[in-house]
Amino acid sequence: MDKRKVDIAIIGAGTAGLTAYNSARKHTDSLVLIEGNTYGTTCARVGCMPSKLLIAAAESAHNAARSRMFGIQVGDIVVNGDQVLERVRRERDGFVGSVLTSMEVIPAAHKLVGCARFLAPGRLAVGDNMEVNADRIVIATGSSPTIPDMFEGLGERLLVSDSLFELPSLPASVAVFGCGVVGLELGQALSRLGVRVRMFGQNGYLGGIADKQIRDYAEQSFIEEFYLDIRSQVTHLSPVESGVSISFTDRDKGPVTETFDYVLVATGRSPNLAGLHLHNSGLTLDDSGIPVIDPSTLQCGNSPVFLVGDANRQVPFLHEAAHEGRIAGDNAGRYPQVVSVARQVPFSVVFSSPQIAAVGVQVGRMSAAEGKDYVAGTSSFEDQGRSKVIGKNRGLLKVYAERDSGLFVGAEMFGPAAEHIGHLLAWAAQQRMTVAAMLAMPFYHPVIEEGVRSALKDLHNKLKSTDASVDECLECGPGG
Amino acid sequence: MDKRKVDIAIIGAGTAGLTAYNSARKHTDSLVLIEGNTYGTTCARVGCMPSKLLIAAAESAHNAARSRMFGIQVGDIVVNGDQVLERVRRERDGFVGSVLTSMEVIPAAHKLVGCARFLAPGRLAVGDNMEVNADRIVIATGSSPTIPDMFEGLGERLLVSDSLFELPSLPASVAVFGCGVVGLELGQALSRLGVRVRMFGQNGYLGGIADKQIRDYAEQSFIEEFYLDIRSQVTHLSPVESGVSISFTDRDKGPVTETFDYVLVATGRSPNLAGLHLHNSGLTLDDSGIPVIDPSTLQCGNSPVFLVGDANRQVPFLHEAAHEGRIAGDNAGRYPQVVSVARQVPFSVVFSSPQIAAVGVQVGRMSAAEGKDYVAGTSSFEDQGRSKVIGKNRGLLKVYAERDSGLFVGAEMFGPAAEHIGHLLAWAAQQRMTVAAMLAMPFYHPVIEEGVRSALKDLHNKLKSTDASVDECLECGPGG
Repeated sequence: MDKRKVDIAIIGAGTAGLTAYNSARKHTDSLVLIEGNTYGTTCARVGCMPSKLLIAAAESAHNAARSRMFGIQVGDIVVNGDQVLERVRRERDGFVGSVLTSMEVIPAAHKLVGCARFLAPGRLAVGDNMEVNADRIVIATGSSPTIPDMFEGLGERLLVSDSLFELPSLPASVAVFGCGVVGLELGQALSRLGVRVRMFGQNGYLGGIADKQIRDYAEQSFIEEFYLDIRSQVTHLSPVESGVSISFTDRDKGPVTETFDYVLVATGRSPNLAGLHLHNSGLTLDDSGIPVIDPSTLQCGNSPVFLVGDANRQVPFLHEAAHEGRIAGDNAGRYPQVVSVARQVPFSVVFSSPQIAAVGVQVGRMSAAEGKDYVAGTSSFEDQGRSKVIGKNRGLLKVYAERDSGLFVGAEMFGPAAEHIGHLLAWAAQQRMTVAAMLAMPFYHPVIEEGVRSALKDLHNKLKSTDASVDECLECGPGG
Repeated sequence: MDKRKVDIAIIGAGTAGLTAYNSARKHTDSLVLIEGNTYGTTCARVGCMPSKLLIAAAESAHNAARSRMFGIQVGDIVVNGDQVLERVRRERDGFVGSVLTSMEVIPAAHKLVGCARFLAPGRLAVGDNMEVNADRIVIATGSSPTIPDMFEGLGERLLVSDSLFELPSLPASVAVFGCGVVGLELGQALSRLGVRVRMFGQNGYLGGIADKQIRDYAEQSFIEEFYLDIRSQVTHLSPVESGVSISFTDRDKGPVTETFDYVLVATGRSPNLAGLHLHNSGLTLDDSGIPVIDPSTLQCGNSPVFLVGDANRQVPFLHEAAHEGRIAGDNAGRYPQVVSVARQVPFSVVFSSPQIAAVGVQVGRMSAAEGKDYVAGTSSFEDQGRSKVIGKNRGLLKVYAERDSGLFVGAEMFGPAAEHIGHLLAWAAQQRMTVAAMLAMPFYHPVIEEGVRSALKDLHNKLKSTDASVDECLECGPGG
């Protein structure tokens, strides 16, 4: 075996690994970035980008179909499945290409190709012929879709988010399992592209929505568009000649058996840790075999090992993976003087339609006892001016504040432009603004943000806050 | 003449007048809101709302036509002009109705219908039979479209933004004069709805864009879609049997004469002050006959008269009118102890496509000497990830900071979702955030906001700021 000694080894060249590399390199030139699989991030290859591309096509078809409400008559709308997926792949390849291009600045001496596994603490085997001894190690191996046992034996009829985009054309029918971010985004997009879709969820989970009222609202909204059962009962599932036969209790009709071209499994992702032989790493593992980390340093116990990105199962979002990579890469460089970094306010978006956004503290997930220190303000988008103008007046927003301080702490939204509203609210929470301070900010007109102001006013009124007076206007215009 | 004595008289029941009323009423019950025209705000009746409704129809037609890029084939797109305008008016009427409903809480004793004019300081005639003596007066009479002399004699062939929406159907051709907000929004919308549009501007003015590079970019973008000449030369204009004949120098072909169904004049708006007989008011007037005011109090000199909203020709945006109304109503209540209120950061949006947004200090409008204390960061949306995904990768953003402090002071943008990006940036400027602080905020992925981060990073690099370190990432994902 060839041997190599480095200050820092980073396992995985995805988003978290790349940012870790970049941070670590400021401390040392003795480092190596190890990739055992394809270069290019989960985001660009199989995650964010291809899914958003599919959604863009779905929105286009959906909006064309509803142009009649504006007085625009549109002839037959034909979804060309080949072309839809061809664009998805073409643009996706462009994004992957830009990631690969950005990696060209990494010196060849810093790159190592091969699967890494622990031989002992600080000792890694990479592929068959290389041993790397590293003072410090950053694990950034990402995650992969989980396939529950019930889907075994489906062969090519089984799709995950990775393989869906490789189909030559859109199938006629897909049964989607899982009502999380991925299932909801892809299931709705497929439905809007003319695919017969049934979505099977569990335990009432829907896109991570915490607040019951918003979840019920969203469920109703989706159900009007496609079949969705967030408490599904599937009794049998097996491959047949023409696809996959599924027996389940239809929400309306009771027990039925239907055949689908494909099953899309979106029931979750698991960290890619199995091949790492963590039992040789000397790290303390939790019950699931995952190293125990400090989220503010990404350090595994007191060891010189750091675990970041999807691999640590904390928050599987790109911006968090990038943030974690930066923290861990820097701490790997500083070790043993690691630094705790305040994590950003939690912020997530589901690119369904309407979109779902969550920011900060989720009072909807709290018990009554926990929630009593918080106050909620609400607004509906059904009568919101701008939302009505563009025919997207559907949705609900809740904003939360600490009862005593009037501090804005979080929000949850199902509604128009939630990705943008989410940023406004995430920045406000990150800056620890009070509700009164937010109400003093500029709101243009007529904009969807005026619906945010309505929720904040409701919250302010309920707070009976004494921290600042807020002008109330009779009616600032038909916006709120 | 009937006589009436009140503490406060408010002339005009539009947006500014209504918010002034609401603020003033907290100080006294002896007040009257005088309206000489139709109830309902400029915004709801003839401004923001109907124009955004027309734009929504135009976007729908435009997006249907470009669905092919996503693999969606759409049959013939037929714009039903009757139905388009019918929806505009129906929804518009709903917004006007909501304004009228909100006015129902005003006691009848506080409402007075009739045109007001000054008889003397503190003395108003309202209509023919009423004299109102008021200790304090708020003037909120709004504005009306200006019609330059050259358009006289066009009769029904002359449209302004008010009358356009009353047409029974969309015309076949319209010559639009004025490339400001109104001209640009309506001209582009008409063009997208299949109307033959030529837009004639003056002096290179385009939607208020200050920065030359952004203005050039926007001009080029619009020109690819419809005829636009921001330095037009119109030599003759006269009504003919079939419409209006216009002789002008075509940007490409030289001198031509064309006939249009209508001329839409959008060359500006003037304060509705002529009927007020301000010469009797005792107020100090400027050269244009407009009372001189202090923008932080809205007070006219040291008098007990306040001038707000479009009538004062300061910033003709609804949110500013509402803010001014609140300040002036409160100050009318407090008079003579008036309070100076800090005005919000300037913020404007043009709902063209792409949209235009401006926030805070406009370095593009400064001389080189004035501009030397500021630094600009730039990003293009042509390669921006999310913008590419949705096929809207067009536009340019500039962000500005003080050179010494690193304080973010303003931005100008032509690009996707500028109305939302504008809010994020307006709130940041209002809170006096530094560029480094903004870069530490959460940015989701993949979102258009990542293009903002690119501009901020560029700005941060140019500032060589020492105020805070900002993590640079190799490539956080294909977003920026």
